[in-house]
Amino acid sequence: MSQQLSSQTPSNQDRIVGKHVFGNLYDIDDKLLMDKDLLEGLVLEAVKIAKMNLVEIKSWSFGGKKGGVSVIALVEESHIALHTWNEYKYATLDVYTCGVDSNPQAAFEFIVSNLKPKRHQMFFADRSSE
Amino acid sequence: MSQQLSSQTPSNQDRIVGKHVFGNLYDIDDKLLMDKDLLEGLVLEAVKIAKMNLVEIKSWSFGGKKGGVSVIALVEESHIALHTWNEYKYATLDVYTCGVDSNPQAAFEFIVSNLKPKRHQMFFADRSSE
Repeated sequence: MSQQLSSQTPSNQDRIVGKHVFGNLYDIDDKLLMDKDLLEGLVLEAVKIAKMNLVEIKSWSFGGKKGGVSVIALVEESHIALHTWNEYKYATLDVYTCGVDSNPQAAFEFIVSNLKPKRHQMFFADRSSE
Repeated sequence: MSQQLSSQTPSNQDRIVGKHVFGNLYDIDDKLLMDKDLLEGLVLEAVKIAKMNLVEIKSWSFGGKKGGVSVIALVEESHIALHTWNEYKYATLDVYTCGVDSNPQAAFEFIVSNLKPKRHQMFFADRSSE
């Protein structure tokens, strides 16, 4: 009986559980979106909130009208990516985590609550193996 | 008249055009999914096919049952992320590009055609500013 239940509901031990929360963040204070250190700090904190293990984090600044900041954190074995465009007061955020106990939505909401976009969207994609 | 049309259909010069193609790739030859150099080479070629400008590419190998390879390319100003789990013959792929002329779908399909998953999904998310 338990074996039958097990085959109907595969154990999370037997597959990769991938959770990807992503969205677009509109109308943000442009000064925040130029502050590479602040943005990297938010992503670092988000890694903890999502219950992920950080492997490496890196950030870059880009000049020009369509410039801004990119922060990418590699975690085991997925990523957080935050891209900003200060002239457009715009940012996009992807929080992709692995593991049944990870919480990408909490990490996404943490960054949103700090950047305070006037509008934003949040979507979920299942990145699990079969 | 042209001004009116312009306000109805905003010029792509006036906003960030972000295109994100992503999906899960099932049942891949596990030897391919352990070959960090091969996977990094595929992502580098995909950057060109998508008509993106590479800023930096990096790859990592992870051991253990849930290990594999991660390759992340930062491009101006978005990313390609390929994560693999060889024990599960599984990979996920995100090709997120900026610019009206970029072609993330061609890059996605290039990597799929090389990894030859028995099944895969492909989704599109609009990451453009308003």
